[in-house]
Amino acid sequence: MQVTICPERAIMEHVTSRWGVLVLQALSDGSSWRFSDLRRKLEVVSEKMLTQTLRTLERDGFVHREVKPVIPPHVEYTLTPLGKGAAGHLVALSSWIEANYPEVAQAQNRYDEA
Amino acid sequence: MQVTICPERAIMEHVTSRWGVLVLQALSDGSSWRFSDLRRKLEVVSEKMLTQTLRTLERDGFVHREVKPVIPPHVEYTLTPLGKGAAGHLVALSSWIEANYPEVAQAQNRYDEA
Repeated sequence: MQVTICPERAIMEHVTSRWGVLVLQALSDGSSWRFSDLRRKLEVVSEKMLTQTLRTLERDGFVHREVKPVIPPHVEYTLTPLGKGAAGHLVALSSWIEANYPEVAQAQNRYDEA
Repeated sequence: MQVTICPERAIMEHVTSRWGVLVLQALSDGSSWRFSDLRRKLEVVSEKMLTQTLRTLERDGFVHREVKPVIPPHVEYTLTPLGKGAAGHLVALSSWIEANYPEVAQAQNRYDEA
């Protein structure tokens, strides 16, 4: 497999970025999220990093941003159909890691004892 | 879905780290790689970062490191069966991005024009 620097690799970096992974996984529950709720969910993310991550994912067409015309107005984020496709792969990887974690922990113990 | 800070999330970060993604994808071709060949393949990675990435993936049980007793000795890296499982998910995500890249590019154009 050829690993080259190309636009596709940039998208791979957006999707697998630290906060990209967590935002896509959080939104993959299918509901719409307010900025403040997402920020609470992700715990240690700064406002600036979350804004930047959401903007990148919106630009890539993975996240839909909607301003709700209520008083006071607020913004809600959901996955687009395209975003559901990307998020599905992250959720699958995450489930795989959870299922195989005991084997990983064993490997870590062997490594640390060697 | 609950996103919490836990050991599984640390493994997710190793697998989806910038160089973790590229190392696992490169090794997923099934052959064994020498350090210098991997470094050439990944292009812009520093020696220190590649060493660190390989060590983390070896400790997690994803990568097997073998010192070849030749003169001069050299080291070869392959995926373990566990590593093949993790890498398979990255390859699937990467193929998905490649297949859907036209739609992502369209979204980016719409965003930039708005």
